[in-house]
Amino acid sequence: MTGLAERIVQGDRRAAARLMRLLDDRIPAAYDELKTLFPHTGKSYIVGITGSPGSGKSTLTNQLVKAYRQRGKTVGVVAIDPTSPFSGGAILGDRVRMHDHETDPGVFIRSLATRGNLGGLSRSTRDVIHVLEALGKDVIIVETVGVGQDEVDIVGTAHTAIVVLVPGMGDDIQAIKAGILEIADVFLLNKSDREGADRAEREIRMMIELGGRRTAWDTPIVRAVATEGKGVLDLADAIERHRAWLRTRGEFDERMRRSRDAEFWDTVRQQLRERAEAALAANPELQTMQKKLWAGEIDPYSAADRLLSSMGQGT
Amino acid sequence: MTGLAERIVQGDRRAAARLMRLLDDRIPAAYDELKTLFPHTGKSYIVGITGSPGSGKSTLTNQLVKAYRQRGKTVGVVAIDPTSPFSGGAILGDRVRMHDHETDPGVFIRSLATRGNLGGLSRSTRDVIHVLEALGKDVIIVETVGVGQDEVDIVGTAHTAIVVLVPGMGDDIQAIKAGILEIADVFLLNKSDREGADRAEREIRMMIELGGRRTAWDTPIVRAVATEGKGVLDLADAIERHRAWLRTRGEFDERMRRSRDAEFWDTVRQQLRERAEAALAANPELQTMQKKLWAGEIDPYSAADRLLSSMGQGT
Repeated sequence: MTGLAERIVQGDRRAAARLMRLLDDRIPAAYDELKTLFPHTGKSYIVGITGSPGSGKSTLTNQLVKAYRQRGKTVGVVAIDPTSPFSGGAILGDRVRMHDHETDPGVFIRSLATRGNLGGLSRSTRDVIHVLEALGKDVIIVETVGVGQDEVDIVGTAHTAIVVLVPGMGDDIQAIKAGILEIADVFLLNKSDREGADRAEREIRMMIELGGRRTAWDTPIVRAVATEGKGVLDLADAIERHRAWLRTRGEFDERMRRSRDAEFWDTVRQQLRERAEAALAANPELQTMQKKLWAGEIDPYSAADRLLSSMGQGT
Repeated sequence: MTGLAERIVQGDRRAAARLMRLLDDRIPAAYDELKTLFPHTGKSYIVGITGSPGSGKSTLTNQLVKAYRQRGKTVGVVAIDPTSPFSGGAILGDRVRMHDHETDPGVFIRSLATRGNLGGLSRSTRDVIHVLEALGKDVIIVETVGVGQDEVDIVGTAHTAIVVLVPGMGDDIQAIKAGILEIADVFLLNKSDREGADRAEREIRMMIELGGRRTAWDTPIVRAVATEGKGVLDLADAIERHRAWLRTRGEFDERMRRSRDAEFWDTVRQQLRERAEAALAANPELQTMQKKLWAGEIDPYSAADRLLSSMGQGT
């Protein structure tokens, strides 16, 4: 697979797709390619979009891709699916809409499943972002359901984080409250032709004020009807304004710093976990100990101590 | 703090509260106490309750505590708060309801904040559960908003996992779909006096059937109006039936095994993370490297390699 990185930097989509698959499978050599790609990353603008299911995130993403294409920008999309046997159909429907852009070489779309990606979702997302950066995409949109800590982390490391809300949400405001509202750089009130849009906007405004202003950025609320393409240019403008603001305030560098540090620690943690699993797999005594642990004959803390000692990491 | 474990086993609530605080602060000696407590754990029945905000989980938990007290059982409650500047009020309201039990020595309630507990929530929850087990509680109820992977993990290791839904949820079913529906041993349809309850029950039934049956357990749907105490005894009965089923099928041991293994790995991962942080803090060269990482002069993977090498965990 030598040379994948070079081909990606030259804009080879198939090489990009191939490296993404290798990264999915956690092939060690794929990380060597990522290292080679690294000097070519960090130049794209990352937009995070999150919100409840049914809030119209996918439609918005689709419209935003169109808006950027009309402005001559190339776009990458990372769509994170909460794959579930209960939701296969709905998700498929969302994705089908993205096929609008299938034949456009200026757009690259990649879906990531949350299932089986326990704890590694933010890392997988960053890996894909880096490949898209190296591929030379001007803008990369990361779209995810805004519910878990993983999703908060992912969108929180975007340059501009958009939280999508809809009128009449009531309790739903609570559903996405845990951390996600605080990371919003832009609120997008979708389906704003519905009854209750004014009230929803007031509620969001109140939440912003109650939350206290962390920075001098005045979080805008953009109203849209994504299915009709209304408000999408306003959204693109709000993103541009936020981007300009980040640059003037040194906030952009701060976000890059945070994102790189998070990626560093994710990598350290994952490698250490793999080392620990290998240490257990190579040591029959530790495996006997694990059976005792399962039977409740030894406590999990003492069991952990023994595994750590075998790795030279004892206390 | 020597002797805390002994006092807890004798039923000393203040000692239990003190150990929980020490565990919160991650005082190493607190884990020695946990090790001492370990032989006294594993005897309580763990019930997990999860669902969207506004579904009435706290009210249900409150009612379930009452029901168990009437049956002569002692109860521990671990309430996990999605603390947020946006939600302080609402959460406080929920918690206030629990004050019904404040003067009852047969009930011990502990709140855990999700904030600042990144990645450590399931471990913190298990720590508190062990203290409550050692305190001799017959039943321990873990109540959490059912949105993130952490929450799924927590409720998934309970003996009986209850997922609370309400009529008219529509898209909300999607909001909690990612993993949480699959772990339900009992569905509780709260606010079932509302319009659409029959339809909601049919939808849930359909989801259960679509999801495929993993085991021979026939997942019940219990209807309730928690604010009026209706259906709560049915819920307690459904939990009892599930408990009896677990015992006869060997599933109980399997859940204990899974829970202990998860706790073991959580401990290993957290200790390794702490070792890595200490390695960085003790090494000025690595700190210089971290600054280069922040500036984009070295990639995160190579930076991780260097830290791992310094820990004797290089490739």
